[in-house]
Amino acid sequence: MLEKLKQEVLDANLQLPKYKMVTFTWGNVSGIDREKGLIVIKPSGVKYEELKLEDLVVVDLNGQVVEGDLKPSSDTPTHIELYKAFPNIGGIVHTHSPWATSFAQAGRGIPALGTTQADYFYGEIPCTRPMIDSEILADYEKETGSVIIETFKELNEDYIPGVLVHSHAPFAWGKDANNAFHNAVVLEEVAKMASRTYMLNPQVESMNQTLLDKHFLRKHGANAYYGQKKEE
Amino acid sequence: MLEKLKQEVLDANLQLPKYKMVTFTWGNVSGIDREKGLIVIKPSGVKYEELKLEDLVVVDLNGQVVEGDLKPSSDTPTHIELYKAFPNIGGIVHTHSPWATSFAQAGRGIPALGTTQADYFYGEIPCTRPMIDSEILADYEKETGSVIIETFKELNEDYIPGVLVHSHAPFAWGKDANNAFHNAVVLEEVAKMASRTYMLNPQVESMNQTLLDKHFLRKHGANAYYGQKKEE
Amino acid sequence: MLEKLKQEVLDANLQLPKYKMVTFTWGNVSGIDREKGLIVIKPSGVKYEELKLEDLVVVDLNGQVVEGDLKPSSDTPTHIELYKAFPNIGGIVHTHSPWATSFAQAGRGIPALGTTQADYFYGEIPCTRPMIDSEILADYEKETGSVIIETFKELNEDYIPGVLVHSHAPFAWGKDANNAFHNAVVLEEVAKMASRTYMLNPQVESMNQTLLDKHFLRKHGANAYYGQKKEE
Amino acid sequence: MLEKLKQEVLDANLQLPKYKMVTFTWGNVSGIDREKGLIVIKPSGVKYEELKLEDLVVVDLNGQVVEGDLKPSSDTPTHIELYKAFPNIGGIVHTHSPWATSFAQAGRGIPALGTTQADYFYGEIPCTRPMIDSEILADYEKETGSVIIETFKELNEDYIPGVLVHSHAPFAWGKDANNAFHNAVVLEEVAKMASRTYMLNPQVESMNQTLLDKHFLRKHGANAYYGQKKEE
Repeated sequence: MLEKLKQEVLDANLQLPKYKMVTFTWGNVSGIDREKGLIVIKPSGVKYEELKLEDLVVVDLNGQVVEGDLKPSSDTPTHIELYKAFPNIGGIVHTHSPWATSFAQAGRGIPALGTTQADYFYGEIPCTRPMIDSEILADYEKETGSVIIETFKELNEDYIPGVLVHSHAPFAWGKDANNAFHNAVVLEEVAKMASRTYMLNPQVESMNQTLLDKHFLRKHGANAYYGQKKEE
Repeated sequence: MLEKLKQEVLDANLQLPKYKMVTFTWGNVSGIDREKGLIVIKPSGVKYEELKLEDLVVVDLNGQVVEGDLKPSSDTPTHIELYKAFPNIGGIVHTHSPWATSFAQAGRGIPALGTTQADYFYGEIPCTRPMIDSEILADYEKETGSVIIETFKELNEDYIPGVLVHSHAPFAWGKDANNAFHNAVVLEEVAKMASRTYMLNPQVESMNQTLLDKHFLRKHGANAYYGQKKEE
Repeated sequence: MLEKLKQEVLDANLQLPKYKMVTFTWGNVSGIDREKGLIVIKPSGVKYEELKLEDLVVVDLNGQVVEGDLKPSSDTPTHIELYKAFPNIGGIVHTHSPWATSFAQAGRGIPALGTTQADYFYGEIPCTRPMIDSEILADYEKETGSVIIETFKELNEDYIPGVLVHSHAPFAWGKDANNAFHNAVVLEEVAKMASRTYMLNPQVESMNQTLLDKHFLRKHGANAYYGQKKEE
Repeated sequence: MLEKLKQEVLDANLQLPKYKMVTFTWGNVSGIDREKGLIVIKPSGVKYEELKLEDLVVVDLNGQVVEGDLKPSSDTPTHIELYKAFPNIGGIVHTHSPWATSFAQAGRGIPALGTTQADYFYGEIPCTRPMIDSEILADYEKETGSVIIETFKELNEDYIPGVLVHSHAPFAWGKDANNAFHNAVVLEEVAKMASRTYMLNPQVESMNQTLLDKHFLRKHGANAYYGQKKEE
């Protein structure tokens, strides 16, 4: 079942080490079939170089394993919360990619400092508030999802497809697993650029809003004109 | 038509990922046939690993597609403005290479701090002024070219073959596509070195002018003596 | 003799260049057979690309060579001290991996700033005090072990499987050679992240203790639930 | 003639791109036959990937080409000065390796901050004074050698086998071409570590002299005990 979705999720998982986004098993990708309400996700702690299609785990939106011999990623409850709260997303990527993780550890969001970010994120990539003890002690991975959702209360998750979890690491998402992977790489790349920009100019401010609009909207939305097709 | 130029432009485009100058599709190379007034340029949003000779697009200096099934790079109007204003250049490279982009985001030029830069750039690599809203809203990619040309009003583009576009990223150029690629790599490399130099010595000043003259002129101009041929 | 242990030690040694943990011969891995009281260790100054199973040296806990034609690593006495003082460890890795070495040169430990570290190290990775002249002049490599052991007087080496030796470089250990290699890579990775975190937020404090507990204990100890097996 | 020396010089040249020490043609290696008074050196501006044994140029100590169809490196006069002044060296490497070049551009030497440097360099790696206009205008490459030699008036070039030329880049040397290559890589590596150490501890001081003695002398001189042979 879900063979096409499984292949997409496998492919996106295997892109992570290729793009140097993960060390060892530090990351996972999932994808969702919205009609069936089923999620395909990487198993917990399995090496990327050994990961095969049949290792992927299918879970429902209650976290019950529907298919697969292995345990799903320990971050599965976070993925589920995000799929439930963000109705348009089809894939999620979690990594500890080092530049983005440094922002998460510093407790800072990544402001839009240039067009590289503006091409994919319509403004600052936020950092969540620190989680409180009761959230950590109760149902930690689920609450990690909740604090992300809280962070997006006033933000549009379709326009800002990623977040930094305080003291932890980034999550990114997209219309499917491949698009989520893509956004995770961009998040890491703009974190690197922003960090180096601060070294050169600690007082740098966010970019001109008109320029941000221009770049984001030439690639997204009804009037996009970048690439060979609209909404590529 | 333009088979030799197409091959040069394809080769230079394919050098970009090899030298880690681009992530995904973030870059493009063009070359011009001055006699025919035709430009060969990368299509918009096509992956480098899939790019083939027949994908390249031929446009005239009005931006009209003369040959090719795909849409040309969205940055084509910027390339056209530069070819029109800078009569000696034969190739242009645009990337979001990360060190150079960090300088662009910081709104700073890259002063000549050592002989690595002096071997290719005869002084500081400038950063443009920020573009104003009316420029962004009107004909953005064309105006990007205009603000670069304005930046070079008092500078010699043949001696300083590159620029940082404020809040955006670098453009580099040269006598042909390969030479432009070469200058783009140097620009990235000297951005990296300059950034690290500032960390070690925030008060560092531009290098001795006599040393700058010596290095630039031993590789460029009538008295060059570096390499196996003059003006290699 | 000890063929299985030798293979493990060889494999872990060969992982070091693959993970860019060593330049030239700057590193060594050992493993111990606790029952026989014998250690297998890399020979001194041999290139990783030429290292073969039969080059490995077997020494006893007095440092006497029991098998092998080559001289053991000059750091062998440090390994022996650690095996004697830390009864549960089965493998040791020494490298000059650059980010961790920078912390050692700065004389600073690596505080736990995020979950990446918390997944493997239960708190700060300490830096030893500087060694004094008499220690350096007497039996230097053995005293290097002693100053590490002194550093762990109040710490649990099973929960913090690594250290920075002041003005020198890191040592990491684990239940076997492969696990020690794993911890050495994590140490380098969290050193990189911590260094970049300080650039973004020089006043950053250690992470929430409850979050540290949560992450360390979900991967270690009786109630671990990460991965496919307990205590993976 | 000099086939063995040519092979050594070719091998060392080809190691440079493999160790990411050079971009394009930015570097050169030479070796000397002291008995014959002849130097084998890389030709000027030839790409490493195309470099063949027969491309190497043989020059005498007056800079006259004795064999070879190509022009020798433009830095040949610098190499000659160093061979004349430093009687024990058999090979020289010049690169623009980026971390070392950043120190050169900052006008700072690299103090000995840890044992990585102490294993190869017996103290600070110095930076030359800036060259004055008359030196640059007269016989620039020869004067580059002279300012290096001046820098070593009170230093032992056999114990500190490298230097940073102010506003330029590093030179390293050794008993032969391969050893010089080795020292060039170490120089780059300790420049990287020192730069990062300064970020973590801007007030860091040079390492303990006793520790410096210990590490340098366990690898060099009559009482060396590192590696499989003395004076490896």
